[in-house]
Amino acid sequence: MMRVSANAEKKFLQQVFKKNGFTEENGALLADTLVDADLRGISSHGIQRLAWYERMIADGTIKPTNQVKVLKESLTSLLIDANGNMGQLASAFAMKNLIKKAKANQVAMAVIRNSNHFGTAGYYSRLAAKAGLIGISTTNTRPLVVPTNAIEAFLGSNAFAFTFPAEPHPFVFDGATSSVSSGKIAVLAKNQRPIPGEWAVDRNRQVIHDSAQAFKILSEAAFTEHQSGGGVLTLGGNQETNSNYKGFGNSLVIELLTGILAQGSISADTSKGKHDFSQFFMVIDPAFFGDVEVLKAKATRMFNRIRKLAHLPGTKIMIPGDREYRNYDQNLKQGVVIDPRTQEEMAEIAKKFQLELPEVL
Amino acid sequence: MMRVSANAEKKFLQQVFKKNGFTEENGALLADTLVDADLRGISSHGIQRLAWYERMIADGTIKPTNQVKVLKESLTSLLIDANGNMGQLASAFAMKNLIKKAKANQVAMAVIRNSNHFGTAGYYSRLAAKAGLIGISTTNTRPLVVPTNAIEAFLGSNAFAFTFPAEPHPFVFDGATSSVSSGKIAVLAKNQRPIPGEWAVDRNRQVIHDSAQAFKILSEAAFTEHQSGGGVLTLGGNQETNSNYKGFGNSLVIELLTGILAQGSISADTSKGKHDFSQFFMVIDPAFFGDVEVLKAKATRMFNRIRKLAHLPGTKIMIPGDREYRNYDQNLKQGVVIDPRTQEEMAEIAKKFQLELPEVL
Repeated sequence: MMRVSANAEKKFLQQVFKKNGFTEENGALLADTLVDADLRGISSHGIQRLAWYERMIADGTIKPTNQVKVLKESLTSLLIDANGNMGQLASAFAMKNLIKKAKANQVAMAVIRNSNHFGTAGYYSRLAAKAGLIGISTTNTRPLVVPTNAIEAFLGSNAFAFTFPAEPHPFVFDGATSSVSSGKIAVLAKNQRPIPGEWAVDRNRQVIHDSAQAFKILSEAAFTEHQSGGGVLTLGGNQETNSNYKGFGNSLVIELLTGILAQGSISADTSKGKHDFSQFFMVIDPAFFGDVEVLKAKATRMFNRIRKLAHLPGTKIMIPGDREYRNYDQNLKQGVVIDPRTQEEMAEIAKKFQLELPEVL
Repeated sequence: MMRVSANAEKKFLQQVFKKNGFTEENGALLADTLVDADLRGISSHGIQRLAWYERMIADGTIKPTNQVKVLKESLTSLLIDANGNMGQLASAFAMKNLIKKAKANQVAMAVIRNSNHFGTAGYYSRLAAKAGLIGISTTNTRPLVVPTNAIEAFLGSNAFAFTFPAEPHPFVFDGATSSVSSGKIAVLAKNQRPIPGEWAVDRNRQVIHDSAQAFKILSEAAFTEHQSGGGVLTLGGNQETNSNYKGFGNSLVIELLTGILAQGSISADTSKGKHDFSQFFMVIDPAFFGDVEVLKAKATRMFNRIRKLAHLPGTKIMIPGDREYRNYDQNLKQGVVIDPRTQEEMAEIAKKFQLELPEVL
């Protein structure tokens, strides 16, 4: 485990992206999305993804010099072709446009096709929050999740982020719609630790606690055309009596807004052929409904009341966003954490491109 | 248990609403929303609510002769004052307007304040589906749900419905964002049956299986200003390790879009003072993104593939909406089911207004 400063990480990433053929501007954006995830403690979506992105550039899945194209545009809406480049580029482009459109017409939406992995969903909806607006950001993913009663993966872990202006930081709800993201299981497998809850099942829909076994099932489901069965559970867990069909429904909502509206691959089909992802974004201007400072104060007051509710001894009630903003402040001072395996991968990439590694703090 | 024809139920309801001072048109709409719920097998939101609505009319919470008011309007957006009348009236009014706005400008939204209970969320989003559009419908509710780690109810069960055009029927995801609605617990308590899953907890956050005990906790939390602790769980159940903070986040999204944007009561405060609810609606025209018949066929194909996935023996994979459309067809032929307690309440109401009860089939 090492720490490097966010600035040093960013500089290194920008150089790597430049060597891969991205423009200066695009490389800076990509670096910012990864550093931002590391600062927020979402290391599954930080620099540890770099080697994976490098492999997808090498095999042609990601096309670093392709331009984002607007296919259709109205006062409120955008249909965008990411053109096989990184999902981050089309997504930030879309969100910046939606912010302008929402300010003029109260609400605006975008669908992106032919896209790739876009990092954390929260990055884009936070752009709206910075502008005093409500942001929604979603993506489909590789097939990982078993519908209610099913014993094979079909749905994506389908990220959903929603932000709303508040103090001292915006409300930021950001994560997979499934019980957990596959990244959480990957981290446990890497550290040889058991799965603590109802996260994944085998081909007989028995809950798996062995993270290595679960990781193997997910790798096959997500990255090969063959499945032996099993996968991540929908939110609600393994039992229909615990309403896991509601988690299933939430996942389907994202499938419809992304792969179906974009006429791209649904999550189930991203493991073969084009490997394309789709994204859906929305921005809402709360100022139509009332003074934004008043609405913000009302939201803040509600969150503060919730933080202070009676709760179990030894626990804490946290509002979505609390943890990541605390991490952000800490890691900006202390540097971001990089795990040993990622250190090795960074060293290989530095060697390939003859770059200096970020200084270890 | 008795059955009556949907037509007879509707005629009876229309007469009752007329006697309460609603206009002919408003009474017909109200009757339609209740009959529709009964036809779909959502009897918790059908005619069994009638006595409760009557009580709220009697105590002045519902004001049958008040007019819905548009407070603010743009090409894409509406701020509406339900003016203390039934939530159904402002909601249907909003949705009909949003359908026109979305057809002209691709996406439209409405916030309603000073509202009451609006029936099933799905009723309004299905209006959009009928017009070939995507519909979203949400409401806050009485305080019932305990946030992650909390031991007192604060959040509403906050309904969320989402519809998307498909064959042989639209995708209709419709329900409480919490693990279950309080109605489900009320039905078990009525029938003296245990709670089968992680639905509710006591003041020590221990899962409750005694439905009478849970019902008592919820009645106090929802309808009095005092709480002894306990409530319904967020989707994800009792344990933070099972990601119940995601269900918490989903509930908060609805709180923000309803009570906060409307500047009405948040769910926690609907048990005192004004008892007002707020609603949020959205309509999206998928035709901006592609030919609607093509998009519909893609959605239908995805649902059919999911219905046929390998699954546990003795189980079935159902897409949201499958159950309620099957019920609808059956109950249209066989009549809707009415429980004994509701029969008694209907008899009292019929006597009060000197009306004939619907014929028993």
